[in-house]
Amino acid sequence: MTNNSELTIPTFEDVIAAHRRIAPYIHRTPVLTSSYLDELTGAQLFFKCENFQKAGAFKARGASNAVFGLSQEQAAKGVATHSSGNHALSLAYAAGRRGIPCTAVMPHTAPQAKKDAVCGYGGKIVTSEPSISSRETILAEVLAEGGAEFVHPYNDPRVIAGQATCSRELNEQVDMLDAVIAPIGGGGMISGTCLTLSNLAPKVKIYAAEPNNADDACRSFKAGCIIADDAPQTVADGLKVPLKELTWHFVSNYVTDILTATEDEIIAAMKLTWQRMKIVIEPSCAVPLATILKNREVFADKRVGVILTGGNVDLDRLPWVKG
Amino acid sequence: MTNNSELTIPTFEDVIAAHRRIAPYIHRTPVLTSSYLDELTGAQLFFKCENFQKAGAFKARGASNAVFGLSQEQAAKGVATHSSGNHALSLAYAAGRRGIPCTAVMPHTAPQAKKDAVCGYGGKIVTSEPSISSRETILAEVLAEGGAEFVHPYNDPRVIAGQATCSRELNEQVDMLDAVIAPIGGGGMISGTCLTLSNLAPKVKIYAAEPNNADDACRSFKAGCIIADDAPQTVADGLKVPLKELTWHFVSNYVTDILTATEDEIIAAMKLTWQRMKIVIEPSCAVPLATILKNREVFADKRVGVILTGGNVDLDRLPWVKG
Repeated sequence: MTNNSELTIPTFEDVIAAHRRIAPYIHRTPVLTSSYLDELTGAQLFFKCENFQKAGAFKARGASNAVFGLSQEQAAKGVATHSSGNHALSLAYAAGRRGIPCTAVMPHTAPQAKKDAVCGYGGKIVTSEPSISSRETILAEVLAEGGAEFVHPYNDPRVIAGQATCSRELNEQVDMLDAVIAPIGGGGMISGTCLTLSNLAPKVKIYAAEPNNADDACRSFKAGCIIADDAPQTVADGLKVPLKELTWHFVSNYVTDILTATEDEIIAAMKLTWQRMKIVIEPSCAVPLATILKNREVFADKRVGVILTGGNVDLDRLPWVKG
Repeated sequence: MTNNSELTIPTFEDVIAAHRRIAPYIHRTPVLTSSYLDELTGAQLFFKCENFQKAGAFKARGASNAVFGLSQEQAAKGVATHSSGNHALSLAYAAGRRGIPCTAVMPHTAPQAKKDAVCGYGGKIVTSEPSISSRETILAEVLAEGGAEFVHPYNDPRVIAGQATCSRELNEQVDMLDAVIAPIGGGGMISGTCLTLSNLAPKVKIYAAEPNNADDACRSFKAGCIIADDAPQTVADGLKVPLKELTWHFVSNYVTDILTATEDEIIAAMKLTWQRMKIVIEPSCAVPLATILKNREVFADKRVGVILTGGNVDLDRLPWVKG
């Protein structure tokens, strides 16, 4: 890792080390294609299926890298985090594999499927309000009590280096990509994508996709500095959190553009993916397809990697079913 | 093909010819595994994902073999069939690829997603009552009118030879299988599985899985002769049809056992597959997992191929969502 003023920026060597470290605990996920969606968008889409990842989301990569990189002494005190869901359950998964304790501060609005999964992996949940400020306050209490190692869901070089292994695989699985698009919340996956591709394939354009209702990254990108919202409302529950210093470093330096989609567009893209690709994806990872469908001119005739970030959905509360 | 008294029984040479004929029009579908489901069942399960097949179901194999095996003269008059859904849309898909007309007689109770897909591929729908007798009567009128070639959904050697290509791939993709299990309705997939495995891997046991509510194949198997029900009610809408002479030949000669599951067990297995494997499967193809879960002693410690037959589901009418 290199120090950039006061930030510890992960390097591509960290990515290679992370990939070696986490290989026993993660899947090398498949890449799927859909002739129907290719025809609909005019692009060639390559879907990297992190919904098939351990614990149901790409976050198993970063969490495993953090957990398995701890010294024995650090590990004994366990790990803790705050998360709307996927990072919490991925950290619980990784901690469970290493046999160490894990505490997750989760908003009471987090999907039940994600809360159940944290407990299923042996994690302990402490409930907070949905706001970032509430999460951070309660986490500080947890850390002060037990001395656990804090693994931030995205503003952590170990986590970013772990997420970066995803696009390293994608770059091996698909030749001649013109662009890669991933959802952006806190920016961990996008930062990992920037880290890998700026080293391995610097000509590949990197797009981020964000809900209109939580478009702080898009506004930050235009303003040239971090703008953070507290507790925005969107069906894409994984994308409510703001950028932080480390992810802002990557977003501001390497991202080509940030595109947005409405709630209806996100839900339609999610349902379309289920219908035509026969895979379960969560709302957050339908945002890239939603933006591709409404920005046809950006992606037409291009070979586009689309990172499907996760598949942890409450099947009893689907967004297109009136309940 | 060989003649067995008055039946035209497809041979393994027909399977090889079918595989060569249909290769440009079908996917070689992937095999997925789930450590969670392996732990739950005590078996090693290998899921052959025909839900990812063209037109969303294995039936694209048999339909393509029938359509692309027609002479130019036959093909010009088009094809016709009766089907609760997947065979109809697969035949429409194959006919569309060859550029010939297709008429499907479908019960008015068929899932909307399947009816939409038939029309999407350019097929024409004629509506019948849900009973087998109604379907057959209306089809006879269609055939008398236009001279189309009838492609039966399963009691047709061309169709069985096509379906048989699925377990030929599975046998290449997974070593040392102890057993293969597939749902049984009319018996086309099971017959194809018997045809392939009795030639390539005769020690592999073949199980069929059937809804309790439409257990005519199970009762036939026990009685030693075909017992047919008219219009049974089950959530597994693809499995309502009875065995016919050709499929009975394979079932009675090669199947080890037919296991059954209740409606609740089928719905639970379907939801569990969506939740843990992040794939969309239709109720019919959840029946094998439902029977594996309740017959642990039959499959424990075995390497079991599970054929996931299709993924065409009305996402607005999921069986676990009260509507």
